[in-house]
Amino acid sequence: MVLSDRTAVKSALRGQRIETPSWAFANSGTRFKVFPQAGVPRTAQEKIADAATVHRFTGAAPSVALHIPWDWVDDFAALGRYAEDLGIRIGAINTNVFQDEDYKLGSVTNPDPGVRRKATDHLLEAIAIMDTTGSRDLKLWFSDGINYPGQDDIRDRQDRLAEALHETYDRLGADQRMLLEYKLFEPAFYATDIPDWGTSYAHCLELGEKATVCIDTGHHAPGTNIEFIVAFLLRAGKLGAFDFNSRFYADDDLMVGAADPFQLFRIMYEIVRGGALDPAYGINFMLDQCHNIEAKIPAIIRSVMNVQEATAKALLVDRDALRAAQRAGNVLEANAVLMDAYNTDVRPLLAEVRAEAGLDPDPIAAYHRSGYQEKIVADRAGGQQAGWGA
Amino acid sequence: MVLSDRTAVKSALRGQRIETPSWAFANSGTRFKVFPQAGVPRTAQEKIADAATVHRFTGAAPSVALHIPWDWVDDFAALGRYAEDLGIRIGAINTNVFQDEDYKLGSVTNPDPGVRRKATDHLLEAIAIMDTTGSRDLKLWFSDGINYPGQDDIRDRQDRLAEALHETYDRLGADQRMLLEYKLFEPAFYATDIPDWGTSYAHCLELGEKATVCIDTGHHAPGTNIEFIVAFLLRAGKLGAFDFNSRFYADDDLMVGAADPFQLFRIMYEIVRGGALDPAYGINFMLDQCHNIEAKIPAIIRSVMNVQEATAKALLVDRDALRAAQRAGNVLEANAVLMDAYNTDVRPLLAEVRAEAGLDPDPIAAYHRSGYQEKIVADRAGGQQAGWGA
Amino acid sequence: MVLSDRTAVKSALRGQRIETPSWAFANSGTRFKVFPQAGVPRTAQEKIADAATVHRFTGAAPSVALHIPWDWVDDFAALGRYAEDLGIRIGAINTNVFQDEDYKLGSVTNPDPGVRRKATDHLLEAIAIMDTTGSRDLKLWFSDGINYPGQDDIRDRQDRLAEALHETYDRLGADQRMLLEYKLFEPAFYATDIPDWGTSYAHCLELGEKATVCIDTGHHAPGTNIEFIVAFLLRAGKLGAFDFNSRFYADDDLMVGAADPFQLFRIMYEIVRGGALDPAYGINFMLDQCHNIEAKIPAIIRSVMNVQEATAKALLVDRDALRAAQRAGNVLEANAVLMDAYNTDVRPLLAEVRAEAGLDPDPIAAYHRSGYQEKIVADRAGGQQAGWGA
Amino acid sequence: MVLSDRTAVKSALRGQRIETPSWAFANSGTRFKVFPQAGVPRTAQEKIADAATVHRFTGAAPSVALHIPWDWVDDFAALGRYAEDLGIRIGAINTNVFQDEDYKLGSVTNPDPGVRRKATDHLLEAIAIMDTTGSRDLKLWFSDGINYPGQDDIRDRQDRLAEALHETYDRLGADQRMLLEYKLFEPAFYATDIPDWGTSYAHCLELGEKATVCIDTGHHAPGTNIEFIVAFLLRAGKLGAFDFNSRFYADDDLMVGAADPFQLFRIMYEIVRGGALDPAYGINFMLDQCHNIEAKIPAIIRSVMNVQEATAKALLVDRDALRAAQRAGNVLEANAVLMDAYNTDVRPLLAEVRAEAGLDPDPIAAYHRSGYQEKIVADRAGGQQAGWGA
Repeated sequence: MVLSDRTAVKSALRGQRIETPSWAFANSGTRFKVFPQAGVPRTAQEKIADAATVHRFTGAAPSVALHIPWDWVDDFAALGRYAEDLGIRIGAINTNVFQDEDYKLGSVTNPDPGVRRKATDHLLEAIAIMDTTGSRDLKLWFSDGINYPGQDDIRDRQDRLAEALHETYDRLGADQRMLLEYKLFEPAFYATDIPDWGTSYAHCLELGEKATVCIDTGHHAPGTNIEFIVAFLLRAGKLGAFDFNSRFYADDDLMVGAADPFQLFRIMYEIVRGGALDPAYGINFMLDQCHNIEAKIPAIIRSVMNVQEATAKALLVDRDALRAAQRAGNVLEANAVLMDAYNTDVRPLLAEVRAEAGLDPDPIAAYHRSGYQEKIVADRAGGQQAGWGA
Repeated sequence: MVLSDRTAVKSALRGQRIETPSWAFANSGTRFKVFPQAGVPRTAQEKIADAATVHRFTGAAPSVALHIPWDWVDDFAALGRYAEDLGIRIGAINTNVFQDEDYKLGSVTNPDPGVRRKATDHLLEAIAIMDTTGSRDLKLWFSDGINYPGQDDIRDRQDRLAEALHETYDRLGADQRMLLEYKLFEPAFYATDIPDWGTSYAHCLELGEKATVCIDTGHHAPGTNIEFIVAFLLRAGKLGAFDFNSRFYADDDLMVGAADPFQLFRIMYEIVRGGALDPAYGINFMLDQCHNIEAKIPAIIRSVMNVQEATAKALLVDRDALRAAQRAGNVLEANAVLMDAYNTDVRPLLAEVRAEAGLDPDPIAAYHRSGYQEKIVADRAGGQQAGWGA
Repeated sequence: MVLSDRTAVKSALRGQRIETPSWAFANSGTRFKVFPQAGVPRTAQEKIADAATVHRFTGAAPSVALHIPWDWVDDFAALGRYAEDLGIRIGAINTNVFQDEDYKLGSVTNPDPGVRRKATDHLLEAIAIMDTTGSRDLKLWFSDGINYPGQDDIRDRQDRLAEALHETYDRLGADQRMLLEYKLFEPAFYATDIPDWGTSYAHCLELGEKATVCIDTGHHAPGTNIEFIVAFLLRAGKLGAFDFNSRFYADDDLMVGAADPFQLFRIMYEIVRGGALDPAYGINFMLDQCHNIEAKIPAIIRSVMNVQEATAKALLVDRDALRAAQRAGNVLEANAVLMDAYNTDVRPLLAEVRAEAGLDPDPIAAYHRSGYQEKIVADRAGGQQAGWGA
Repeated sequence: MVLSDRTAVKSALRGQRIETPSWAFANSGTRFKVFPQAGVPRTAQEKIADAATVHRFTGAAPSVALHIPWDWVDDFAALGRYAEDLGIRIGAINTNVFQDEDYKLGSVTNPDPGVRRKATDHLLEAIAIMDTTGSRDLKLWFSDGINYPGQDDIRDRQDRLAEALHETYDRLGADQRMLLEYKLFEPAFYATDIPDWGTSYAHCLELGEKATVCIDTGHHAPGTNIEFIVAFLLRAGKLGAFDFNSRFYADDDLMVGAADPFQLFRIMYEIVRGGALDPAYGINFMLDQCHNIEAKIPAIIRSVMNVQEATAKALLVDRDALRAAQRAGNVLEANAVLMDAYNTDVRPLLAEVRAEAGLDPDPIAAYHRSGYQEKIVADRAGGQQAGWGA
């Protein structure tokens, strides 16, 4: 790598932004058991403080996504200022239309028009919060679907979905966007109303420019080639965000890069190749994970670092050599060029980037030395720990 | 079908026994939400009453499996008598070593010997309950596994597993058995300690005759041919039980026969072909389901009926014609013989079997007419509804 | 079912049309071995004769799809007349851009512009054949894709694909259509250029009204809900055709309905519910199967019957009762209404439909009695049997 | 890494042995098309010459597996001497009971006893070849299975399989072994007779000490944790061999390490942890791949290097630190220790190992410089290229 390239790579890495999710700092688990952890936040403020801590050690996570109503506060403007005081800002607003009794058979696709009204109203309310927090992104994930063949009409549910999306879209401000997530299954076990990127894409296309697809890396059928979807949506101008995590089986919500680091690299390569790494491009690179058994803050720091390492490798791909091999139909050489970057140990490079930015080159060790963990364990005694049910 | 055959089929159907699980009458859900239902039991006794109701309308579900500690009572002998008074008996005892804080990193395979001791003690305690209830079957399902590569040593965990199984096996009485369940994933998301039938089979083989494999129909990798496993284990004399349910994606725990009735038929055909339908053969045909959004008691009645219908079709296979076509290498004819039975509408035959046994030919309708649902909704007001966390 | 309903169901069944594929009458196999069968056609004419035979016994398969160049003849007009003389017509024209040495690294997405030109020219040539045969449908399946990460640029390949599709689309006559098929994998093993319905849909949308999606029921990732795709595409007016077959694992190409008859029923239910069964709606219901080890003509007759049986069950769904249960949120009742139709034995009804149409009620038996098989075995001695390589 | 460790790692790498498969040098493809390559061998001798070339540049592939009858020669003793003259030896003998017309419905599990006899005789004949070549390993892969439910009796086929295996096992000499491979599907599309490791293991256990399981890394259901199987079989003393390759979807037979290098590392870690890397342990680490579109010899060199790189990383795991973190239940630290090794760039270390062994540190470049490829392209004009059908 010539010096100028190295400078460009480091500059790109320095500019990379990853958004953390407030709920990843809270307790989570499986349907079998939630194992609580000491020091877990009890309030939106404490989650934001943890997110700010991740940013303090990584320098790459300057915003935190909220989840309504898990992060409900009476004064979102004050919450925004609280975040800013800690050096970060409030990012995407995530809606929740799956935890009320009314949503047993669906929210915006429920056969009952009253439930649909309630659900859509919640989406509109989330936009009002965005107006206050200055958030750009409204993230929509619907658990809507059915468990049994015949339970409801698949096509009618699409009509209802489209109607709710249109009403919500129309309420968006000029600088606001809708991120529409898809998921193969869970909690619906037969047919999910937005099961794949195609469904999300089709609705976004119909809605307009402000609607884009959000790819959660754990939401696909086995064997799905995620980087293909990334490349396709970039080409179509319809990729708006990632929910990063990793999975071996279903929506395991493990740390991103933990299950298949090579896949993460391939995804980031498509991002780099598509010119979409720069925050100005507009993609919101979020984490969406559950740290059920591992310490949460260090796991999130590790996740940020995993994305950075995959990105660094993607940036190191010799694209001229790659293109030449591809054009020549040299299968082995083209693959080798890609693998050469992947096999590089980029940790020294990232340590350098961190040091140049005034950060500790080893964020995990620095966190452990900082005493933050001991402090929150001591301070956050009593009260009700936050979790998905909170 | 000649008359004598029809008589034999009806006799086999009359003799079929399906065990219901106490926990299926209680609230259940996904990690996202548990939707409670009106009339859900609050105690082990109320669960048993519901199980007895299922038996009253189907005549085919004379036993109920318990789950310890969900169904913990101080006096299991009294609980057994309570069941008998209602016309059923207590079946398999299911252990639970996954809901205590100590089990965060595993139970019998935990790296901490103290936790392993505690877990094994629970298994031994369950056998003591069996001594009291007269249960034959100890059912073991371990959520043990790891979420991240490196988290623990895969092979060491097998050693620990073997040790706990041996100690437990040695405690079994002369007429008691161990049913060892396997599951691909969930709640462990990288490596589960008993992920497949091969692992369960290998441990059972090492343990001895009283240890047999339990097949949960929802616990396999996509594409797994379950009836092959049934045939293989029957041939090896190592199939001890089923946990029936159905799935489209992962361990969805839907009503058995709801997702792939043809698969259920193929499974029951292997049972019939292996001569293993008769209760005297010793297989415990249990349900293990979660009725998250549908009414629980009717869903369980429907599940019993689904197994009966698949069994009736399996019994109707013209095995002489099938064997002749198979031996002749006539692929289409052999398949046609099987499909001919599958395509038969066996509901009239089962209605006849029920009527002859003094049952209502339509158990679902009879249940709805009975007023039982209205009664439990009224009676079970207040108190704490049972669920997985109870 | 009241009489008028029964009449309507029978009328719908009588009008149903299924297209057979010429290549299913020829030899096929796996990469390990092609097992030839006696009596297999050697020419396009002999394939058409077999297709006409399937129609003669089923009355439901009045057209046959051709595959170019497998079915290349010098005079397609004469071939069309030959088919008409036998009582059927030529249906969709299938293109083949995957068996020439030039296509090793792709056809329309090949990095080499010369190869792309050659491939597109073949597509245009197929339209010229359609002009002659009067075929409405141009079916495009591309094996294009890459085997190794980095081998070629995923996004560039989409550009090339779009370009070839546009040129081809522009050549279509007023009454001609393009059917764009997708497939997850095989023969490409890392990234396929049209891997899913979303990709096909997006290209069709861009192309215009004459481009629609073709669903091959064996081309999905494990767990994909195909009937959802059917419902979605019908709603969007973009479902053009089916390639029916069935699979347990990958693109197994077994007889439709053989692996999961309940899935086939659910698919046909969405067709019926969407008003798309009638040939006037425009969907081309084709078979696309490989009869590697079973007798080919009877297997195709059986496949036609399997689709008919699934359709009959779908037509029998009590849609008023279903809608009422769905609207009431009665999960079990709605499922029961659907299952009631599925569990019905529709073979007597179909036998009646056949008899009323002057057909033998048992097409398989009639075929075996007809002597056709013996005749082709005797007549088709010598020469080169047709197959995929032909 | 302290110096003594580094010495040990290099010593282990120097001792590593990977067996190449003769058929990987020949033409291969999918059911859609075989794309021939220039310079492909026409005879067993030419395949051996290519294998010797791979060894010449890697120093790690001193044996070549043969496939009977693809590599049939009249004088196997002479063939063995030919290999030795080129610096390698003949390794495992692979049997082929899937390409004769007789095997359409199976070989050793065929319903026809005559076909079973023929198939078993072929297995015995392969042992006779082993007597001549001095091969230790008889590798058995059976394509046996059925495509349609009912086609044959699943359990009867197990009986027939057991019988053929017993007869074959009894014929093995004192220093000979049986490697029993399993595969989920293909070419059988409904039920395969040895579909998973459990089935292979159970048969091997019954046969005796000389029978062990062969793991083909591409033969599993989606989501299967292969390193678990490795760890389990090592613990049971029943892992005999690998067929290395990689896959994204089914049995894609891509270059090992190409699809999921992290998985390959995890597999090699279990090998290292189990003390099974040393050739003296007895595991045969074979490649079994198809280079359908890429140049074959360089692809095989690359595959050998991929295994070496994964092994080097596995050897670099700080096992004391890992064990300490595991015992302490420190999930993140244990994972980090493993990932630290994985993230290391081991290419310089392997270059050093090669240089010290008198090899070119870059085997691929050295091969390309050697002129071997140009020579075989020129020399091997005319004749019939070897392939699967040869």
